[in-house]
Amino acid sequence: MTQPDDKPNSRACGWQHLETRYPFTYHMFRVREDLVRWPDGHIAPYSYIQTAGAVWIVPQTVDGQIVLIRQFRYTIDAWSWEVPAGGFHDFTGSPLELARRELEEEVGGSSEDWTYVGFFRPGMSLLDEICHIVLARDVRLDRPPRREPGEIIEVHLLPPARALEMARSNEMVDGHSALALLRCEPLLSR
Amino acid sequence: MTQPDDKPNSRACGWQHLETRYPFTYHMFRVREDLVRWPDGHIAPYSYIQTAGAVWIVPQTVDGQIVLIRQFRYTIDAWSWEVPAGGFHDFTGSPLELARRELEEEVGGSSEDWTYVGFFRPGMSLLDEICHIVLARDVRLDRPPRREPGEIIEVHLLPPARALEMARSNEMVDGHSALALLRCEPLLSR
Repeated sequence: MTQPDDKPNSRACGWQHLETRYPFTYHMFRVREDLVRWPDGHIAPYSYIQTAGAVWIVPQTVDGQIVLIRQFRYTIDAWSWEVPAGGFHDFTGSPLELARRELEEEVGGSSEDWTYVGFFRPGMSLLDEICHIVLARDVRLDRPPRREPGEIIEVHLLPPARALEMARSNEMVDGHSALALLRCEPLLSR
Repeated sequence: MTQPDDKPNSRACGWQHLETRYPFTYHMFRVREDLVRWPDGHIAPYSYIQTAGAVWIVPQTVDGQIVLIRQFRYTIDAWSWEVPAGGFHDFTGSPLELARRELEEEVGGSSEDWTYVGFFRPGMSLLDEICHIVLARDVRLDRPPRREPGEIIEVHLLPPARALEMARSNEMVDGHSALALLRCEPLLSR
């Protein structure tokens, strides 16, 4: 039984960690199940998803277009408008380094102008994931994509105003891509 | 072995579903593991998280303030600025009905002016979750909150411009709350 001691603030808020197990592991995530005494005194498991984190990349080309992808998503059985993204599950390096790899792999893009914009957390009752946002400027689509099996992706170029309109509306269903675009808005050239 | 036939579009994109099992279940989510033939022909599991969905509520009071919460999150061992939210794991009803319940439970709020704003999907490589956004106007904080064990919440009132500034910046770490606020922006009174 592993006994992580990684919740000092939770302890101060009345949680008492008793033990931890990992009942399911996949290469993209694992389930962590903590047996805890909750702040009201009862003892029960708190289960959540742990990931290695991921990066969302907002690419703007040398002539100012935003590179969006339309990607097929098995989980929801549908196509989705997104920005390129990738996870740290098979990568050790910085968010900027992962962003560089994913831009090349997913859309065949390269850039020498990278900006770390920030990070957000999605669904903190379920996940401990951290999602980084990186802006790539002066992007050139100058190399062949190298996609993984299961990455079914179309590449589209859109004016920034149009991409932001999609992010603000329900047209861009992918929430992480929408937020990444909106947080990059002040940094985009028009 | 369950055999869901819920991926017709995936089938058309070259995925062949072979079988499904649910190796881990918690009241907030379950792990679904599909054995599939991937579009490139290899056979391997695709595992992801299924949830019943959730709703994020942007509450604006009768005098125009946005109701934000500061909530302690065990998963990341930290406090987080958010809007009220809640899941369908223990609720059968519409997003508007769940929003009404959560507004009352988390912040003691009530409203008779509800607008369904739309939905987004978070992290579609990991999750099939659907996140609804609901705007509540003319909110009154006129009843006692009824919080669940583990909900450690402070209630704050902020001017809309300030709440939106937090959503646009890294100050609001919770991505879902930030996107909910930004998608409600055109509907907020100033």
